[in-house]
Amino acid sequence: MPLVSVIHGPNLNLLGQREPEIYGPTTLAEIDQRLVARAATLGLALETFQSNVEGLLIDRIQADLPRAQALLINAGGYTHSSVAIRDAVAAWKGRAPVIEVHLSIPEARENFRQVSLLAGVVAGRVEGFGPLSYLLALEAASELIGARGNARNQ
Amino acid sequence: MPLVSVIHGPNLNLLGQREPEIYGPTTLAEIDQRLVARAATLGLALETFQSNVEGLLIDRIQADLPRAQALLINAGGYTHSSVAIRDAVAAWKGRAPVIEVHLSIPEARENFRQVSLLAGVVAGRVEGFGPLSYLLALEAASELIGARGNARNQ
Amino acid sequence: MPLVSVIHGPNLNLLGQREPEIYGPTTLAEIDQRLVARAATLGLALETFQSNVEGLLIDRIQADLPRAQALLINAGGYTHSSVAIRDAVAAWKGRAPVIEVHLSIPEARENFRQVSLLAGVVAGRVEGFGPLSYLLALEAASELIGARGNARNQ
Amino acid sequence: MPLVSVIHGPNLNLLGQREPEIYGPTTLAEIDQRLVARAATLGLALETFQSNVEGLLIDRIQADLPRAQALLINAGGYTHSSVAIRDAVAAWKGRAPVIEVHLSIPEARENFRQVSLLAGVVAGRVEGFGPLSYLLALEAASELIGARGNARNQ
Amino acid sequence: MPLVSVIHGPNLNLLGQREPEIYGPTTLAEIDQRLVARAATLGLALETFQSNVEGLLIDRIQADLPRAQALLINAGGYTHSSVAIRDAVAAWKGRAPVIEVHLSIPEARENFRQVSLLAGVVAGRVEGFGPLSYLLALEAASELIGARGNARNQ
Amino acid sequence: MPLVSVIHGPNLNLLGQREPEIYGPTTLAEIDQRLVARAATLGLALETFQSNVEGLLIDRIQADLPRAQALLINAGGYTHSSVAIRDAVAAWKGRAPVIEVHLSIPEARENFRQVSLLAGVVAGRVEGFGPLSYLLALEAASELIGARGNARNQ
Amino acid sequence: MPLVSVIHGPNLNLLGQREPEIYGPTTLAEIDQRLVARAATLGLALETFQSNVEGLLIDRIQADLPRAQALLINAGGYTHSSVAIRDAVAAWKGRAPVIEVHLSIPEARENFRQVSLLAGVVAGRVEGFGPLSYLLALEAASELIGARGNARNQ
Amino acid sequence: MPLVSVIHGPNLNLLGQREPEIYGPTTLAEIDQRLVARAATLGLALETFQSNVEGLLIDRIQADLPRAQALLINAGGYTHSSVAIRDAVAAWKGRAPVIEVHLSIPEARENFRQVSLLAGVVAGRVEGFGPLSYLLALEAASELIGARGNARNQ
Amino acid sequence: MPLVSVIHGPNLNLLGQREPEIYGPTTLAEIDQRLVARAATLGLALETFQSNVEGLLIDRIQADLPRAQALLINAGGYTHSSVAIRDAVAAWKGRAPVIEVHLSIPEARENFRQVSLLAGVVAGRVEGFGPLSYLLALEAASELIGARGNARNQ
Amino acid sequence: MPLVSVIHGPNLNLLGQREPEIYGPTTLAEIDQRLVARAATLGLALETFQSNVEGLLIDRIQADLPRAQALLINAGGYTHSSVAIRDAVAAWKGRAPVIEVHLSIPEARENFRQVSLLAGVVAGRVEGFGPLSYLLALEAASELIGARGNARNQ
Amino acid sequence: MPLVSVIHGPNLNLLGQREPEIYGPTTLAEIDQRLVARAATLGLALETFQSNVEGLLIDRIQADLPRAQALLINAGGYTHSSVAIRDAVAAWKGRAPVIEVHLSIPEARENFRQVSLLAGVVAGRVEGFGPLSYLLALEAASELIGARGNARNQ
Amino acid sequence: MPLVSVIHGPNLNLLGQREPEIYGPTTLAEIDQRLVARAATLGLALETFQSNVEGLLIDRIQADLPRAQALLINAGGYTHSSVAIRDAVAAWKGRAPVIEVHLSIPEARENFRQVSLLAGVVAGRVEGFGPLSYLLALEAASELIGARGNARNQ
Repeated sequence: MPLVSVIHGPNLNLLGQREPEIYGPTTLAEIDQRLVARAATLGLALETFQSNVEGLLIDRIQADLPRAQALLINAGGYTHSSVAIRDAVAAWKGRAPVIEVHLSIPEARENFRQVSLLAGVVAGRVEGFGPLSYLLALEAASELIGARGNARNQ
Repeated sequence: MPLVSVIHGPNLNLLGQREPEIYGPTTLAEIDQRLVARAATLGLALETFQSNVEGLLIDRIQADLPRAQALLINAGGYTHSSVAIRDAVAAWKGRAPVIEVHLSIPEARENFRQVSLLAGVVAGRVEGFGPLSYLLALEAASELIGARGNARNQ
Repeated sequence: MPLVSVIHGPNLNLLGQREPEIYGPTTLAEIDQRLVARAATLGLALETFQSNVEGLLIDRIQADLPRAQALLINAGGYTHSSVAIRDAVAAWKGRAPVIEVHLSIPEARENFRQVSLLAGVVAGRVEGFGPLSYLLALEAASELIGARGNARNQ
Repeated sequence: MPLVSVIHGPNLNLLGQREPEIYGPTTLAEIDQRLVARAATLGLALETFQSNVEGLLIDRIQADLPRAQALLINAGGYTHSSVAIRDAVAAWKGRAPVIEVHLSIPEARENFRQVSLLAGVVAGRVEGFGPLSYLLALEAASELIGARGNARNQ
Repeated sequence: MPLVSVIHGPNLNLLGQREPEIYGPTTLAEIDQRLVARAATLGLALETFQSNVEGLLIDRIQADLPRAQALLINAGGYTHSSVAIRDAVAAWKGRAPVIEVHLSIPEARENFRQVSLLAGVVAGRVEGFGPLSYLLALEAASELIGARGNARNQ
Repeated sequence: MPLVSVIHGPNLNLLGQREPEIYGPTTLAEIDQRLVARAATLGLALETFQSNVEGLLIDRIQADLPRAQALLINAGGYTHSSVAIRDAVAAWKGRAPVIEVHLSIPEARENFRQVSLLAGVVAGRVEGFGPLSYLLALEAASELIGARGNARNQ
Repeated sequence: MPLVSVIHGPNLNLLGQREPEIYGPTTLAEIDQRLVARAATLGLALETFQSNVEGLLIDRIQADLPRAQALLINAGGYTHSSVAIRDAVAAWKGRAPVIEVHLSIPEARENFRQVSLLAGVVAGRVEGFGPLSYLLALEAASELIGARGNARNQ
Repeated sequence: MPLVSVIHGPNLNLLGQREPEIYGPTTLAEIDQRLVARAATLGLALETFQSNVEGLLIDRIQADLPRAQALLINAGGYTHSSVAIRDAVAAWKGRAPVIEVHLSIPEARENFRQVSLLAGVVAGRVEGFGPLSYLLALEAASELIGARGNARNQ
Repeated sequence: MPLVSVIHGPNLNLLGQREPEIYGPTTLAEIDQRLVARAATLGLALETFQSNVEGLLIDRIQADLPRAQALLINAGGYTHSSVAIRDAVAAWKGRAPVIEVHLSIPEARENFRQVSLLAGVVAGRVEGFGPLSYLLALEAASELIGARGNARNQ
Repeated sequence: MPLVSVIHGPNLNLLGQREPEIYGPTTLAEIDQRLVARAATLGLALETFQSNVEGLLIDRIQADLPRAQALLINAGGYTHSSVAIRDAVAAWKGRAPVIEVHLSIPEARENFRQVSLLAGVVAGRVEGFGPLSYLLALEAASELIGARGNARNQ
Repeated sequence: MPLVSVIHGPNLNLLGQREPEIYGPTTLAEIDQRLVARAATLGLALETFQSNVEGLLIDRIQADLPRAQALLINAGGYTHSSVAIRDAVAAWKGRAPVIEVHLSIPEARENFRQVSLLAGVVAGRVEGFGPLSYLLALEAASELIGARGNARNQ
Repeated sequence: MPLVSVIHGPNLNLLGQREPEIYGPTTLAEIDQRLVARAATLGLALETFQSNVEGLLIDRIQADLPRAQALLINAGGYTHSSVAIRDAVAAWKGRAPVIEVHLSIPEARENFRQVSLLAGVVAGRVEGFGPLSYLLALEAASELIGARGNARNQ
């Protein structure tokens, strides 16, 4: 069963508590549960990981590369400042799809959220739908994995 | 049956012919067919519209507001230059969700595609998945309409 | 009787419905009626035109040049992006006055509304007074036509 | 009788002498006379004040707040550099309307005149009509005072 | 006989009337006549098209692609703001040459004319020679078509 | 008894009336009273001065240099535009400490409040605590004067 | 007894050794001792934490939120680059005051220290007084906690 | 005897005391004495004026225009921020020469001293020579007055 | 016979060897031969000059002014950095036409090639056609010389 | 035997796998082996450290200061974003040389790699030679240590 | 007799012919004669040098350093682009004064003339007085040499 | 024996005299001697060239291409302004390695030294080590030549 890895960046563990007017009332645990459930219906295994430490996120991105068929990443505040996470994600190019996920639309917020360093190295992006952003990204991953599988089988 | 309106901006009628290395081989007609089919399975009516004329896109965005429950818009090159389309979309705020769709990831391309004037007035964005971007956006619309419906029914 | 042409740009047909907290409850038809009434008291003929299509606005600006003694223009969102409308207005320089009108004060709003491409080619500007902006501009036009008339008669 | 205060900033005392190709031949005294006359016909009292000293302009803006029903201000060169005058004008917000007046159109001139620090805190702006700018602004003030009065009376 | 399509953007229909100190006294009809005459001597068919509507220009650029061997385009004010026209022209890359034409030298004028969005997708540019710019561009087209023809025949 | 001079810039005389949602309900007189009281408990003399006139603030900064042991300055709107006040404060460097005080946090507000011209020439800054900012700055001054005294006595 | 949490960012453990001409000779342990002593006199409990790891600072900011009544933070070099720490601090807004502390005045130093990402989400800032910055911030916290307590008791 | 007016801006009264490593040990009184002496040898009357108040400097520039044959101005910190002083000086254009004087070279110092708002409206500039800058400017004025006189006499 | 001077800037002597994927396989000698041949058919004398030394190019531009009727210049890399060459070319304004030539389209390449310092002082520009650019420019020169001749003869 | 510490930043553990077209096929272990071997021939001890965690890199830089005679650092993506690592390296100034190493030339790549925050605080830089960059830096370190040793012995 | 070297940059040999509305009718030979004459009255030897070649200007600046007591330099267009000339002039710092001379005021002209790379390394600047600029600079040099001589003799 | 060419740009002939606090006491002749000696031990021939003339540096870079196996270049001040030297160096790409050398670290100095136009076209860079920079670059060249030789022999 193909594995999809889901990586949550800094402060996402606070979901449901932090600025609920922006991020909504759902907790990260609830999102993870919904992702696992949806993955099952799509025939996918799914693992989730959260850390506030930039370097541990990089460690995980690296560790997942040889074992996961797709990566969903919400890098939170690191989206806008971390060249290092971008470099880690860039290693997935041509190997397996990475999808950038955001609960809100960063470009609609403060100036320092206008630029995503990930945009240049991901396969696609889903933003603004709250927890639904993750589920849509998971479906996209499922499709992209299938497309790859089909391409390989042809 | 709720209506979802899909608006395609300039040059999208060329899909399949124009720069296929960026936009892929699928034609706009094929995308529209896939959208209609998926809409049916979601219990949604769906209409599509394409124009190269900025003002006709605005006309349509205005005309759809009283009759559609959601709007999917890929404003193409106007995404980055049209304050007028942004103003037309802004009128949907608080009434019905608008979702920004892109086949590629504009922020990963030329400088003049870095800024989306729509980002500040849409409910969500899906980018980079080729034709799949539209299907994911349709699903998002289906969810958002449902959520609104539920909220209204509570 | 001298003719004043009034040109309304994109989305102004939505007036009264779109973002009333910014643009107020008055409709465009009501503004046009008030303009016609005031023109009559000033001894002026007045015609109005609205379009969402940038090029049709240009067509009209061109068509009015040989027949109107003054032009009032609220170019809406095109104020900030349309070099082409600016070029059309520039043709009026030295022939008949053009007055830029805004319901709100664009410079007090988003970044992309800071620059007016029209500012360099109009005779004057009235902003921020809602529908009253148009009436003040009409009075200004009346004065400027008179001044020209007087100058011509001297 | 409601009082309208008119404040003229730096160098406006030179009107008629300074750069007449930009500012015209009318003197400030003549403008003030025309304003007083027009105010009379509108049922308004009117006082004018000119100073080259930024701080004295602020003193006056503060002093007028409890006694005037509207303020017309042409801050001259301070329009583009004075955060302090902006702060003084901001105190009028929600109390009485302030109208920004310019003889020329600053945005059509040098780079350092592109930004008005007042634009964000005034009710409206009239620019480019020479002395007529003041008269139009006075009429706008008359209307706004009336509207307020009406609103208060409802 | 190979076909060269000539597309004139906004306000070029005013040629001879608008700002003659910049654009010269020749009318667009005269330019078109000279182009047709020169095309005949070069063994080329030639069609011309003018519109003030951005989207109709795009429609035409798209419609010409399968039938013309070269495109001459003076996009006027849209040169500096239209990502959508750029995208339409980009579809010609690798198929037939597009040549950017200007009567004046935009880069020698206002700030907002410094950047040409077309520069990155055309085969060549001719600027500043007034109506002669078009004739030189036509000759260039003739040469480029020949070169292609020769290359194809080798 | 060492003297601390407190200088209040433009519009601070309006405190308690101007934009109370930003600056709070306390008046300047109340702040001055609290400062005098606290100074007494710290064994310090304290004088306060307010002016809206940039040049009179400079006059006072110059006049205080030979007679005060420390300076507290809230330059209000001049903080962001006055090179001249900065130059006056710079004369204190190496002689007696100057402390920059703000009721709010300017960097958290509009763009034109992002830069403090004073930051490069003061000993320290206290911002955001409302009237408490002044009291904290006074304590800092007391400490710095003591440190100097001690250093001189060693 | 209310708890104040003090968080020291990267390189502050080197205090007394690193660039003493900028940061002074006092060590972090000495600062912490002085803070604990002063807290005792103010009737406050106080805990301190230092880490060079951005993510561990975030962990601590999150962990302190439910247990501390105020937060003092010197984010060191992360002040200028960490959107993620800003997001963690933002969660305190409306719950308990956060105070930004700096030994030096960053805005008076290199270009890359001009912007504080924290400025928009803290209650106040104290900069430039060396170790005294912390003590002043502690007093501010004490006052703010009291004010809240009083407000709650009313 | 032709009159040369010398205007000293803010903080120049501190000369000899303020930052002597930049501005040197000479006092303003000494500079004025040297100027008077040199003027006498050149057959010129000379008056000097110093103020820290921007508006009083403007008053003086205006008052001097009808009575002085040349103006020497060191606007100090206002050089870089005062559009209003620039406007006052602009009134001299075509009437009598104004010469910008600086003791140091502002462009060689901080960023906020890079731009002189006066540069566009003065006849010439002398910078960097300390008090000698004034004497050289006086000689230049003497020459320019002579040239004008000669031109008038021809 | 009128003389056309052709000036080739730095590295153009390497043509045919340097980055042929950008500049094509033709050598400078071949271009010069084609120019001489074409000039003959146009009844023009033609001289060419190449140097890598900015100052020698200026020497030549100066020397040609009294003897040539038109100048073709490809300033190569100096196009983007040399104010001095611009100044030399500016001396031709109103005397004889100068035409800027480029083999490629600089604006379509690196950032540092976006700005041409020559654009503001030349009569016209031809870019992107490889060696053909020179031939088109020569024809333009021929036309412009003729027009001047005609104008002179009228 | 003097100790040289070599610190590898984020993603360098992936060397040989990540984007080999940019970084080459050599692994980090191989680089470390070559460094150890070369150090031996130079009479130097050498230790290496790699982490993806910014703060752990800072910990190590701090820990090495009292025990190493030189530091080689390739901060990877943190080179461009980490003020905190810069601050840690700055503590070495005047004590022991730090050398910045890069496999590629960052300035030749994306915009966000143009600025090195380390450049201002290191003794030297070696970039672009792949693994050879490290060996050259090691030789430089050897020379600089020798120079210091010699200087100390004189 | 002390030697003053005068260096004229590119295009100054055209003086009197090039753009006389900016630079005036005087030729360079006439300026040199006036300089020699004035030098004689000041007891100074004077040599002049002009070249259009940046590197030859540098050669001369280097060659003059050991033999001249002061340098007057009008670097023309190289003022704004030549880091290399700046570096050559920087070598004079602390040895002999260099004075920057301009006929016009560059900062009052095009954007690319706003910045002088020389401003940071010269002793003083004289601009805008036409040929008189040189004479004033010569007098300044005479004074500075005298001051140095005096200082050396004390 | 392979030839390495070493090119020294403007002002490097002054080494040992110019700003020794930045560039050190070693002369260029001494550097050249050390380079020749080291080249001998590496089995390399070595030639050096210095000029202050940008164009002569280009001439030499062009002349060396067919005869040298590697190029070391310290372009001095031209590093930051010369597109033309960059173009000359670009011709080496894919033929023989070019190495950029600097005595100091330009990025650590003034703003106008932040960008190297060479960075995009060289194989590697060595900066900051004084004369040692050249020796390290020579070793790098030796390795790169060897690698090429080996690659060719395989």
